[in-house]
This record gives sequence, C-alpha cells and structure tokens, in this order.
Amino acid sequence: MRHTISVLVENKFGALTRIAGLFSGRGYNIDTLNVGPTQDEKISRMTIVVKGDDRVLDQVIRQLNKLVDVIEVQDFSDSQYVDRELVLIKVKADSSNRSEAMQICDIFRAKIVDVQLTTLSIEVTGNEQKIDKFINMMSLFGIVDLCRSGKVAMPRRGE
Amino acid sequence: MRHTISVLVENKFGALTRIAGLFSGRGYNIDTLNVGPTQDEKISRMTIVVKGDDRVLDQVIRQLNKLVDVIEVQDFSDSQYVDRELVLIKVKADSSNRSEAMQICDIFRAKIVDVQLTTLSIEVTGNEQKIDKFINMMSLFGIVDLCRSGKVAMPRRGE
Repeated sequence: MRHTISVLVENKFGALTRIAGLFSGRGYNIDTLNVGPTQDEKISRMTIVVKGDDRVLDQVIRQLNKLVDVIEVQDFSDSQYVDRELVLIKVKADSSNRSEAMQICDIFRAKIVDVQLTTLSIEVTGNEQKIDKFINMMSLFGIVDLCRSGKVAMPRRGE
Repeated sequence: MRHTISVLVENKFGALTRIAGLFSGRGYNIDTLNVGPTQDEKISRMTIVVKGDDRVLDQVIRQLNKLVDVIEVQDFSDSQYVDRELVLIKVKADSSNRSEAMQICDIFRAKIVDVQLTTLSIEVTGNEQKIDKFINMMSLFGIVDLCRSGKVAMPRRGE
C-alpha cells in the first residue's frame, strides 16, 4: 500500500541522512521525498511517499519516533489531508503545435513559464491524478525535461 | 553563496542516502531538497539548495560525479534556469478576517484549498522572493502549519 509520511525534524542535515537510511535499510521504495523549512526556522518538515508492506512500515515509523531529531511523525494514509505536487515540464512545441499545447495547459490551469523557438516550459500543480494525466497528455509532444517536487501534504484539521 | 544543484540519479533509494551523506559529511547546510521521478521511471531528479563555501562545493560536486548512481550534476548558480517552489500553508482566519486573507491570496494568485471555521489552507507557487513575501504576509494571521516542497529547477535552454 502507498503511504504519505510527514516528519517534523530538527533542522540538522544529518537527520535527513539518518531518516533516509531507515527507509532504504528496510528495502523500502521511496517514490518522492522533500524537505524544507517550517515557520520555525529550527524545524524542517519532510514529506515522504513510500510503497510497501504495512507491517514493515509500522516498524519504520516506530524507529523514526525513536530518533533524537524527530519531533513528530504522521502517517497520512489513514487520515484526512490535503496534498499537492508541483511539476516543471519542458516539452517540444514549435509554431506548428504550440497553440495545441497551450490549449491543454489552459484546461489543466497550468502556467507557461518560459518559451523558446522549439520548446515550452510549463508549471502545473495538483493532486497526483491530475499531475499524472497532465504528464501523460504532454508526453505526446515529447518531454525534454521533467522536474517534480514530490508530494507535500498537510492535515485538514488544525488547531 | 547559495547554489541550486540538480542531480540526475538512478532510481535506487540508497543513492539518496549517499548523496545526502556527501553534503552533511562536509558540514554543508542544506536549505531544501527534493527528489521525484522523471519521464524515465528508472531515473530520478534531485534538486538541492545549499549555502556555503564555493571551494568546498566544487569538491562535493566532483565527488557526486564519481558516484556510480549519479548520471549528471548541474550547478544552476551560474546558468539561466527557471525555478519554482510550492507551499501549503494553513493560517488562522475566521469570519472576522477571512475576507482580508482571501484578498491577499488573490494578489499573490494563491489558491484556497481548504476552509474550516477558524482556518484557511492555501496553496501558492512562485520563485523564492514571492514565496517569502507571501509567508511574511500570512504570518500576520498566525501560521498553524507550513509545508514547503523546496525549490525545483530546470535549465531554460533545452534541445
């Protein structure tokens, strides 16, 4: 099963290496991972999307909780959350098919961030399904470059 | 100086641990890091934003290039590139100040992705300056939760 794990950690870079090591040591497939600062500059948030055995993941989460730098671990697979991903994609498009590419961008509310004579660079955000569908459509033009941020996720309920 | 490093790696998770280790071993501060799949499912792209000494970074890049799993390393600090970041942010906002928060979102072209009686969840993308300014404005309402994807970057020129 697929899980989205959110980890609050103290902002020491060795922490990332240790956390990444916990997953790879268990042979866990990581689909995406990202880490960035939070409102407290001493604390970073990591969002990790993993696929694999639920029982093994329980062990990994227990071990995560034991790491000194880890403040909180949330498994979003079983709770309500909002998630989004950002993708930058560069596709082949020239005067003959640029308007068709722009039409598809319009439908997906994607933004064109750069244009060259033979390429278009596009920014799109959304949930996984939307992103996958957009990349699928764009692959018809020929993908030159693709850069995904990985999923970021946040619980719906707050204070 | 601040650098944005883009690394194409074979999609083996041990690779992430090794790459992260190279930076942390040198005492390098990592601001953000993300990793996700590319158009070729066997290859992932990592984008790493680091601060530190240029000479040490040159060494790190040379060592990165020696890792078996690493296909390509680009240092975007000295070339033209497009970069974007995605942020999910939850702020305190109720009936008394929700419309003011929504006004600011409008100005920044941020999207509201969830609303509760006392909170607003917002999605915003942009370059670093825009993101920093938006977070600054939103901190006036009180930030409940903040999740940043880290920078994704792509060279302007393609094929």
